[in-house]
Amino acid sequence: MTRYKGLMLIGDGMADRPVPDLAGKTCLEAANTPNLDRAAAEGALGLLDTVAPGLRVGSDTAHLSLLGYDPRETYTGRGPLEAMGVGLEVKRGDIGFRCNFATVDDKMIVTDRRAGRIRERTNELAHAINQIGSLEGVQIIFRESTEHRGALILRGEGLSDKITDNVDPHEEGHPVGQCAPLDPNDKAANFTARVVNEFVRRSYQVLKDHPLNRERIGAGENPANIIIPRGAGVAPHLKPFHEVHGLSAACVVEVGLIRGLGRYLGFDVADAPGSTGSLDTDLDSIARTVLAALETHDFVLCNVKGPDIAGHNGDAPAKVKIIERIDAMVGGILPQLLDRTVLTVLADHATPVVTLDHTGDPVPFLLWGPGVLTDCSQAYHERAASGGGLGRFSGLHLVHVMTNLMNVQEKFGA
Amino acid sequence: MTRYKGLMLIGDGMADRPVPDLAGKTCLEAANTPNLDRAAAEGALGLLDTVAPGLRVGSDTAHLSLLGYDPRETYTGRGPLEAMGVGLEVKRGDIGFRCNFATVDDKMIVTDRRAGRIRERTNELAHAINQIGSLEGVQIIFRESTEHRGALILRGEGLSDKITDNVDPHEEGHPVGQCAPLDPNDKAANFTARVVNEFVRRSYQVLKDHPLNRERIGAGENPANIIIPRGAGVAPHLKPFHEVHGLSAACVVEVGLIRGLGRYLGFDVADAPGSTGSLDTDLDSIARTVLAALETHDFVLCNVKGPDIAGHNGDAPAKVKIIERIDAMVGGILPQLLDRTVLTVLADHATPVVTLDHTGDPVPFLLWGPGVLTDCSQAYHERAASGGGLGRFSGLHLVHVMTNLMNVQEKFGA
Repeated sequence: MTRYKGLMLIGDGMADRPVPDLAGKTCLEAANTPNLDRAAAEGALGLLDTVAPGLRVGSDTAHLSLLGYDPRETYTGRGPLEAMGVGLEVKRGDIGFRCNFATVDDKMIVTDRRAGRIRERTNELAHAINQIGSLEGVQIIFRESTEHRGALILRGEGLSDKITDNVDPHEEGHPVGQCAPLDPNDKAANFTARVVNEFVRRSYQVLKDHPLNRERIGAGENPANIIIPRGAGVAPHLKPFHEVHGLSAACVVEVGLIRGLGRYLGFDVADAPGSTGSLDTDLDSIARTVLAALETHDFVLCNVKGPDIAGHNGDAPAKVKIIERIDAMVGGILPQLLDRTVLTVLADHATPVVTLDHTGDPVPFLLWGPGVLTDCSQAYHERAASGGGLGRFSGLHLVHVMTNLMNVQEKFGA
Repeated sequence: MTRYKGLMLIGDGMADRPVPDLAGKTCLEAANTPNLDRAAAEGALGLLDTVAPGLRVGSDTAHLSLLGYDPRETYTGRGPLEAMGVGLEVKRGDIGFRCNFATVDDKMIVTDRRAGRIRERTNELAHAINQIGSLEGVQIIFRESTEHRGALILRGEGLSDKITDNVDPHEEGHPVGQCAPLDPNDKAANFTARVVNEFVRRSYQVLKDHPLNRERIGAGENPANIIIPRGAGVAPHLKPFHEVHGLSAACVVEVGLIRGLGRYLGFDVADAPGSTGSLDTDLDSIARTVLAALETHDFVLCNVKGPDIAGHNGDAPAKVKIIERIDAMVGGILPQLLDRTVLTVLADHATPVVTLDHTGDPVPFLLWGPGVLTDCSQAYHERAASGGGLGRFSGLHLVHVMTNLMNVQEKFGA
């Protein structure tokens, strides 16, 4: 069997519900997408429940599923994925946390959960935090993210994520909470809670007199004088993608969370210059990067973030426009893929402009390439896909559908 | 996101197979259903396997699945559900049994398994049985049901349902069996079997000289002088519906088993005056009760029993007629639901008039309401649904499909 390459192209949050302002059409229906429509005519469509019918999923759980890892079994919470997303090297057994830079007074009362929405020079604070090095033999690894956000990893023996999530009081005017084990007899959880509490205390010691904070106080701004971790989760146990499928894989993605996940799964991360993760992203650059990655890898995952942003903004015209730009990008790469690549185009979830958030509606998906049995589809959108020849199934199987058509899948049985 | 209410309307056993007397149409195809057809045109159709493709299910297992509880994991047998169905308050850990009032001679030989199909005053016998109170510290709770039927609950510490199901000899002329543990070393099962045998013995002592039985003997009727329990099952471990979904829920149902299940899951049970559970039921009253329940609850389950009865009777004209009456009911409620309620209409299983019993055929389902992407459907029946835009999936997901469209589902992931 001739082996083909595979490209999974995801328009983040691209699926939609009927939009009253578009006469009941979805954004994909309203958009002018001649290239996707041609690919639909040359290939076949179906509906995909990224995880399961009706389930509202995040981009993280959706991508886990689309890459063949059932998030209902493997997802351990946002902390470790957030840490991957900010570029920390997460290892199996690590405990990951999302964090805020916050402001406390000298009685440890949280007076500002976002430290005056600090935006700059948090890397200097992170550097100071990393000087802590280790606590009770547990390595402390911290990195700043956007604005007041950051991520923390605890690395060492005998750690657990079975701890309370109450360090962050979630309301200002309340004291920093004391982390505790969920089960008082759980030795690892007791130890981890103690380390977390000690970390929080030490972060205050390190930050309260930091030069940047003295400047901020001088300028009448709230100091970022403490780190508040939350959402503890153990690094998920995920076998690297190439070990599961025997394929070299790369990703060209615009979402930190997904980039981190890709790195964790052993994908080579290819950065496209001019990729902004926003509506102004350079899709020509992304297309070039994808095509280059396909030269050197068997499987490429590409995620374009724009449609999700337009959906969250409730901006139908912007969503239509970014879809039309994605269509043009597809038009540019299709000739390069011809006869050697299996392509799927889909959304990881719907982010309807009428709901402003993810929904659990099924997403349309397209299969195009050698070996695909064509159906009657003549256009690429939700309604066409609901009558498509590929039927409806869980996204968990998509990677097998791909490796099957790529002729690279091991046989199960004899 | 605007939150909507949800209505799950089930025509019990409404799905069918092709009926020769209807020129190969199903009862749904043969029936004149302008309102359901309009809802199909305004919404979308699909096929549902209530539990899994081809699986023949009961109403109990089907409803468990449709409410999001996988019966393959949670179903513990008919006993506890039967006890719920007769209105007993079933608690977690209880052991439930279906029971017969039967007739034995003084050598404990069963001479009539149905005690002359006794129909009246079994409540007096039940009252006498409940005077037993407890046996070896185990509380005895009994209630009569229709005709010779009843249900028993054993409540206490150290009980098990891992016991033989042989008290009922299933043939007349044989002695009452001795319950035994499935595993002779299982302490809880040994104890439970001993309590069951003692209960059966005591039921004979209590009933044999009961005034009602003396009257029956005098009138030449078989006395109901013993209780024969069977189908032991521990109360299933099911998290209440509102805890799972954060929704207040009510049910308007005509089947005791489903009413009991609803109560067990924390549904408010709304009784419709004139609801008979038969072909002559008052569907206007049911419609009014459903609409009232929707005013005060987020989610309403409604089950109309008639189609199942017509199916079991093999009576196609009666099934067509009750379907047309359900259609009229739908016509009455649709305007009240508009723009604020997500509606699904389906069967819990097929009870084809040609088989006289449940089959494992997929059932048609309709989704109607805000956010539903319309398909090409113009009619509501099995054949239309098999080409519907919603595809085919397991009924286990239907509740998530509903809560997704109702915009009330928590996101899984970030």
